[in-house]
Amino acid sequence: MAEKVLKGIAASDGIAIAKAYMLVDPDLSFEKTTVSDTDAEVARLHDAFDASKAELKVIKDKAVENLGEEEAEVFEAHITILSDPEMLGQIEGKIKDDKVNAEEALKEVTDTFISMFEAMTDNAYMQERAGDIRDVTKRVLSHLLGVTLPSPALIDSEVIVVAHDLTPSDTAQLDRKYVKGFITDIGGRTSHSAIMSRTLEIPAVVGSESATTDIKEGDAVVLDGINGDALVTPTDAEVADYQQKAKDFVAQKAEWAKLKNEATVSKDGKHFELASNIGTPDDMDGVLDAGSEAIGLFRSEFLYMNSSELPDEDTQFEAYKKVVEGMNGKPVIVRTMDIGGDKELPYLPLPDEMNPFLGYRAIRISLDRDDIFRTQLRALLRASHYGQLRIMFPMIATLDEFRKAKAIFEEEKAKLVAAGTPVADDIKLGIMIEIPAAAILADQFAKEVDFFSIGTNDLIQYSFAADRGNEQVSYLYQPYNPSLLRLIKHVIDAAHANGRFTGMCGEVAGDQIAVPLLMGLGLDEFSMSSTSVLKTRSLMKKLDTKEMAKLADKALNECVTNEEVKELVEKNVFGK
Amino acid sequence: MAEKVLKGIAASDGIAIAKAYMLVDPDLSFEKTTVSDTDAEVARLHDAFDASKAELKVIKDKAVENLGEEEAEVFEAHITILSDPEMLGQIEGKIKDDKVNAEEALKEVTDTFISMFEAMTDNAYMQERAGDIRDVTKRVLSHLLGVTLPSPALIDSEVIVVAHDLTPSDTAQLDRKYVKGFITDIGGRTSHSAIMSRTLEIPAVVGSESATTDIKEGDAVVLDGINGDALVTPTDAEVADYQQKAKDFVAQKAEWAKLKNEATVSKDGKHFELASNIGTPDDMDGVLDAGSEAIGLFRSEFLYMNSSELPDEDTQFEAYKKVVEGMNGKPVIVRTMDIGGDKELPYLPLPDEMNPFLGYRAIRISLDRDDIFRTQLRALLRASHYGQLRIMFPMIATLDEFRKAKAIFEEEKAKLVAAGTPVADDIKLGIMIEIPAAAILADQFAKEVDFFSIGTNDLIQYSFAADRGNEQVSYLYQPYNPSLLRLIKHVIDAAHANGRFTGMCGEVAGDQIAVPLLMGLGLDEFSMSSTSVLKTRSLMKKLDTKEMAKLADKALNECVTNEEVKELVEKNVFGK
Repeated sequence: MAEKVLKGIAASDGIAIAKAYMLVDPDLSFEKTTVSDTDAEVARLHDAFDASKAELKVIKDKAVENLGEEEAEVFEAHITILSDPEMLGQIEGKIKDDKVNAEEALKEVTDTFISMFEAMTDNAYMQERAGDIRDVTKRVLSHLLGVTLPSPALIDSEVIVVAHDLTPSDTAQLDRKYVKGFITDIGGRTSHSAIMSRTLEIPAVVGSESATTDIKEGDAVVLDGINGDALVTPTDAEVADYQQKAKDFVAQKAEWAKLKNEATVSKDGKHFELASNIGTPDDMDGVLDAGSEAIGLFRSEFLYMNSSELPDEDTQFEAYKKVVEGMNGKPVIVRTMDIGGDKELPYLPLPDEMNPFLGYRAIRISLDRDDIFRTQLRALLRASHYGQLRIMFPMIATLDEFRKAKAIFEEEKAKLVAAGTPVADDIKLGIMIEIPAAAILADQFAKEVDFFSIGTNDLIQYSFAADRGNEQVSYLYQPYNPSLLRLIKHVIDAAHANGRFTGMCGEVAGDQIAVPLLMGLGLDEFSMSSTSVLKTRSLMKKLDTKEMAKLADKALNECVTNEEVKELVEKNVFGK
Repeated sequence: MAEKVLKGIAASDGIAIAKAYMLVDPDLSFEKTTVSDTDAEVARLHDAFDASKAELKVIKDKAVENLGEEEAEVFEAHITILSDPEMLGQIEGKIKDDKVNAEEALKEVTDTFISMFEAMTDNAYMQERAGDIRDVTKRVLSHLLGVTLPSPALIDSEVIVVAHDLTPSDTAQLDRKYVKGFITDIGGRTSHSAIMSRTLEIPAVVGSESATTDIKEGDAVVLDGINGDALVTPTDAEVADYQQKAKDFVAQKAEWAKLKNEATVSKDGKHFELASNIGTPDDMDGVLDAGSEAIGLFRSEFLYMNSSELPDEDTQFEAYKKVVEGMNGKPVIVRTMDIGGDKELPYLPLPDEMNPFLGYRAIRISLDRDDIFRTQLRALLRASHYGQLRIMFPMIATLDEFRKAKAIFEEEKAKLVAAGTPVADDIKLGIMIEIPAAAILADQFAKEVDFFSIGTNDLIQYSFAADRGNEQVSYLYQPYNPSLLRLIKHVIDAAHANGRFTGMCGEVAGDQIAVPLLMGLGLDEFSMSSTSVLKTRSLMKKLDTKEMAKLADKALNECVTNEEVKELVEKNVFGK
């Protein structure tokens, strides 16, 4: 038996066996002391600065090699900060004047810089600099204290990364060649680290609660991303067992790969559209590899977030055109700007809000700032000429909002047509169904919109009044709760009654427990990470829609809890 | 014609005519300067401290006289801070050492204290002290700069208060004898200041956007809290006109008062229960004055918020007993602790959350901290012996949660019964319907709960994904949206199909546009501020439920927007 078996949430399929790499900050606490030999203390400070700079250069070179110039830029920024004579001078001055140890002087001076930068709340660039200074301070402090800071960019052998949580900047530093899997203390299936693990196709377990305390650096670890388990210092027999499982998984994936060019048809011959969610045009390779029949969600945020100013019409046009052309006439649904909530733009200051998820975001910003919205719509309209483009608006709560958005769209279309710009004449306009009020009024919406796409992450969040990023209420992420399934059914039925179609582009569309139910409810389009497409196609081909309809009916009307529905599907579909 | 006519949101009925009192902070900005005569500067500082103390003593005495000892305590705390030799000493030191002006020295020293106190994030007491120091600094600064800080506690003639917004501490200082009305720039019908105005029965207009810029100190103002208008420097004719309207309003109220002892029966003879929402046992006078037939919502938070530690069982028991006995056998619904969201307790540290309204609050805390919950339930069980007590749980999203809460209730009940404590045997257990998921599954809930009480503020907030305190999305507070009305209908129908009743204790229950629709939908109990009860009874007696049912049917199935429903009711019920 393994020394310990940790249970977490299965975040990304696959099995990995490797040594643990602890991506955990060491203890950097220190006492303030008085020093008499201030020259010696200043020398210590210089040594720590030099060592930090040398270390950062190594990390930076490695990062350029493994991850690319862009990901490595942050380390160059750190080196620049360490080379700033002003900051070093102030710390030296403090050591000499106040006769304090270098750690204390460093802390006091950098704290001042950090609060100064952070106080510039309307300047995201300066706020990021505060983060950089914080990182640099940690590094110099580690050298003063003689402890080692983890440097994920330096990993050069196969490991399983163990962390409390992984931030976007952590994941940017991970080299897929060596990082075979990861396990975190916190997070759920929709946390940043979980989504990233699926995009990178790295097996992952999140929300284990105790990985960073139960696992030590160098421990052998078996990570089972299919079931959400991690075995610490497993026995030889266990390793052999999991090696077999890993082989089976690879074989299974090869089996799935054969379905790449097949249509997604249920056992009884009903066709469903299996589509991909993408974030940038770079994700097109994955879409084509998976044999997706459409792009069900092209998040346009990357255009805004990877930019230092509002992206102009031509930049947007090129990006949309590339994706639309790349799909060769298959449908591409682009979601208009979904900024706000937890997504901020350095150049578009948003109000400070007590509850940003209930605030000024997505279509609410677009309708208020129609200059930004019109630019995006014009770029989309121009791209529509190159394939089958569909447009959907996020965070629609009322029919008024949709009508306003559509009116702006029509105005821009008329202007382009008048100017002789080629524009497709059959662009379908849809809405995300992610706010309960819109779901409930779907029958009225269906008279005016061309399609719905259900965004389950937000729809669950609002329906249960539970922030999906908040661990304390994570038990309320209930994707199988009959309440949610009823809302979904109402939306699908309303669409069909009006000759419209309903897709789903949230996490749930690729969830193996949910898929049978959604087939039974008649969902038309399933859009998910490209990495889940073939697995889902394989499942769907085995299921009979009439049986699934009966199952869904039971789930909606006889079950009363999330758990009951889950058990119903496990028993009837997977024979568990 | 008046010089200016401002349009805002009618927050509290009634008409007031008086001079404007600007509750607006003066400009307290200053430049940092170098001083040579530091002794003179220290003397300036002392003068400002002395003047501030003298001023605070006057305010404090006035506050004790008009508002009571408790409300006046804050000023005593301010005087104590000004009498602290440590802080004064540090400011003097800075003037002498750094040769800066008193303003700058004051600011630097108090800023340090404030950030020190604020850094103690797990200590709400210290955080409040930070607020006190901030207030005191403003006062001393005003004396250094020779400007006047508004002191609402010193108001001694009839005024209309004009403010950007009113905080709870502002309203605590307002003397009802002199404050005849108020108008604010921001806020909606459910903002703190609006709710407070109805409780105090002071005419109010909120959300005027420009009151603080369009009105000047001493301007004559006519405030029409019925229609949401304010006239600045009105003509004599206008004043006469509004004096007549004010008289009519008083007459109207006298007319309503006659209904005090009448039952609430519609034109066609159907009885509805008209109830009051209360916050403390002190609100019982209002309940009895209004002739309410029940208490539909007794918020138990006051027990937790007006305390420096968790209230013990006996304290709670006494409060519940007082209300239950006071109602003489009529029903009293007590809502269990609804802490979290925007309500914090100094002695119960809650996690820092990105979206507190979607976080750890109400029943979520009670189920997690069942020690606190059990104490409250025992106190309630003991009070049940003295009248007709009902208990409801806030923020229920799933049936699991209700079952857990009920199980704990049954355990505590069994223990009390075993110990021979008298406990009523027919305590009804209900839930707030304020989370969409629970509303949608109401038919399943109705098999297990005894009653529903719809909390419209939160239900609207979650259904439309719009923070009700966020101005930027206030257009999404849509109480008449057919989507919301459908949810309400589903809840009422589900209750009736199972022999249960449905009440409503949110703002909408007393809204004159909503009441006809809710009668038509068959809502059983309407609970509101006591001040709205008689007005609503008067309206309900004039309406025919069968006609209202037809109207509601139209609203649900033919209207598609909030505005359309509003117009439908205005036209058909009020003949507008």
